[in-house]
Amino acid sequence: MNESGRVEAFSDGVFAIAITLLVLDIKVPEAGEHGGLWHALGAQWPSYTAYAVSFLVIGIMWVNHHQIFSHVAQVDRTLMFLNLLLLMVVAAVPWPTAMLAEYLREDTASHAAAAVYSLVMVAMALAFQALWWHLTRTGHLFDARVDVPAARATRIRFALGSLGYPLAVGLAFVSAPLTLAAHGLLALYYGFNQVPVPTRQNPAMS
Amino acid sequence: MNESGRVEAFSDGVFAIAITLLVLDIKVPEAGEHGGLWHALGAQWPSYTAYAVSFLVIGIMWVNHHQIFSHVAQVDRTLMFLNLLLLMVVAAVPWPTAMLAEYLREDTASHAAAAVYSLVMVAMALAFQALWWHLTRTGHLFDARVDVPAARATRIRFALGSLGYPLAVGLAFVSAPLTLAAHGLLALYYGFNQVPVPTRQNPAMS
Amino acid sequence: MNESGRVEAFSDGVFAIAITLLVLDIKVPEAGEHGGLWHALGAQWPSYTAYAVSFLVIGIMWVNHHQIFSHVAQVDRTLMFLNLLLLMVVAAVPWPTAMLAEYLREDTASHAAAAVYSLVMVAMALAFQALWWHLTRTGHLFDARVDVPAARATRIRFALGSLGYPLAVGLAFVSAPLTLAAHGLLALYYGFNQVPVPTRQNPAMS
Amino acid sequence: MNESGRVEAFSDGVFAIAITLLVLDIKVPEAGEHGGLWHALGAQWPSYTAYAVSFLVIGIMWVNHHQIFSHVAQVDRTLMFLNLLLLMVVAAVPWPTAMLAEYLREDTASHAAAAVYSLVMVAMALAFQALWWHLTRTGHLFDARVDVPAARATRIRFALGSLGYPLAVGLAFVSAPLTLAAHGLLALYYGFNQVPVPTRQNPAMS
Repeated sequence: MNESGRVEAFSDGVFAIAITLLVLDIKVPEAGEHGGLWHALGAQWPSYTAYAVSFLVIGIMWVNHHQIFSHVAQVDRTLMFLNLLLLMVVAAVPWPTAMLAEYLREDTASHAAAAVYSLVMVAMALAFQALWWHLTRTGHLFDARVDVPAARATRIRFALGSLGYPLAVGLAFVSAPLTLAAHGLLALYYGFNQVPVPTRQNPAMS
Repeated sequence: MNESGRVEAFSDGVFAIAITLLVLDIKVPEAGEHGGLWHALGAQWPSYTAYAVSFLVIGIMWVNHHQIFSHVAQVDRTLMFLNLLLLMVVAAVPWPTAMLAEYLREDTASHAAAAVYSLVMVAMALAFQALWWHLTRTGHLFDARVDVPAARATRIRFALGSLGYPLAVGLAFVSAPLTLAAHGLLALYYGFNQVPVPTRQNPAMS
Repeated sequence: MNESGRVEAFSDGVFAIAITLLVLDIKVPEAGEHGGLWHALGAQWPSYTAYAVSFLVIGIMWVNHHQIFSHVAQVDRTLMFLNLLLLMVVAAVPWPTAMLAEYLREDTASHAAAAVYSLVMVAMALAFQALWWHLTRTGHLFDARVDVPAARATRIRFALGSLGYPLAVGLAFVSAPLTLAAHGLLALYYGFNQVPVPTRQNPAMS
Repeated sequence: MNESGRVEAFSDGVFAIAITLLVLDIKVPEAGEHGGLWHALGAQWPSYTAYAVSFLVIGIMWVNHHQIFSHVAQVDRTLMFLNLLLLMVVAAVPWPTAMLAEYLREDTASHAAAAVYSLVMVAMALAFQALWWHLTRTGHLFDARVDVPAARATRIRFALGSLGYPLAVGLAFVSAPLTLAAHGLLALYYGFNQVPVPTRQNPAMS
């Protein structure tokens, strides 16, 4: 419990910093000759949209991470390592965000940028899945409230729920703005439709 | 209670990082040919002023955020989402701050920059209002000390108190430096004149 | 106590971020034509020295901040405000650090850069003094262990101990590298010779 | 215990920020004329590799730091100072990481960059060793569970285990990419083969 609390505090720090670093990718626009600052501000809409979507993505991932870790009592070395892997992807999000914002309105490059953005999301989903599989497979890391067999049974639903991300990789080659919108919708969906951690009615010890 | 503590810790992280990232917008001046470094340092006063005002704004918002969350015992999904929305605006503050500092002494662009700065403050006030309305409307998220009907009654006063921000948007088209000063005064005002969370004399359970 | 813990956690965040942002001021050197990367790395010694000194300065200030707040049981609005003022200076330290590193070996500009660096330290010392005077003047914010009259008696010694910073402003006009060295020594001195918070032998309640 | 918890929280902050700042070194590539964005993305592999290796290095160092501090009950001034020294190196890691990524494919400069990267790791290992020697030498800073004589006996094994870092300095002059790979393997090795803190079977007080 104490052990798990420490991993959670460190993870919270990384989530909070990654989400706040996103703002560094919104540049101060140059007030050009024609149209002035208002025009330049308007032209930057890809930056604002990418900021909002990635903020939601990291924020919702934090909510889910917390939801799961609040049911974890012990941390083994593999969990520590899988968690580091997840954080490595989360902390990287500002980079594809900046890239997608920069190339969103270009012809060819926008597809590559949107595909990389989506691939980073696939990596994040995979790391999260791996963490959940390890927790449900071992079982003894959960606290006593958790119904381990029921938790195991959620794995397929959990994995199917992540299919949106590989689909977004495909969508990237159709339209980059549409891909960004899809990621916003996916984040909202996971924000309001999480797979809950099943708990027992009468825990042996609580 | 525990649940609320975790949301608070994450929010504190975002507040602390956003407030500290403000310094990245103060550039090292170039020691030009005439007047040297002292002259260049003096010419950067918009950066120092914008830094100080935005630091106060975020700092006071943190105080108010904390004041309210110290009376919250439970967190539902809507509160989580409204809080993420508030943090999305708070974390964005370094961007309008850098922009206002850069254009503060220009003719046309200063008005646009000051208006955007004020609009971000309007967004922050709206997100904070939404959070307060949700808390007072549901009521059951507060801890037992809070006098919910009295808390509901503060909503109008709370909303009126935020009228300074839309007024600052108008002021932006008169004078950008005046707008920045107004935001400093508004922050100080909210720092010393908060709407308190009303508590009951004899809480049923404490 | 709880109230003070929250202010401390937020302050810790700002200290930790400011101290870590210092690294952004050490640039990747350009491997020039003559001498290569090793030569370019050697030429950057002002950056490494400034990094080390400012790291020590913020680190030791954090130790002192914590030492004092570990004896604070309650936080009033003035203390909150004075603490925000102190954090505003602490969070700004990466800026004069980058400036001093950039101009350390120039003739005229180095003096201005070193003077500004020292002035920021004066501001930090003043904010810290103000915080300590407020705590000892009011007295009731301390926890029960603190011997308030004895704490008041430390104020002169505390203030005299800060005289090194204004002296460093003068030294800046003699030599910038010497000024940087002086700040390193001052930080070490305060690290090992703090004014302790006096506690009572038999606290009324502990 | 409380004292140690505060030092740990501050250290955690620095670790979490340093690890997350690594992403700032991955630049948005320029979609050049021939090959487009995909080509430019591929050419950036040194950045991704350096990011992953340094993320692992800081992450594993955090695990080890935490493992040791979870057995520390009291903090003296020397421990505080040695810990600051360790954090000074940890917080600096984004700088050699960016440098190694930039020069990894160049002829001469890559060796210098890899040597500096390895030297920073040597400094980190030395600071960590110093911290462990101070803890085992004094003994009374540990909590009651720790078997102090057995902890002292680990010092040689601990020191030998760090020999990989000076060897990596030598390897830097052979091949920079190989050096980076070696650091990744060293991090993994320390992640899975830590020297444990020996605890007593029957602690006098627990």
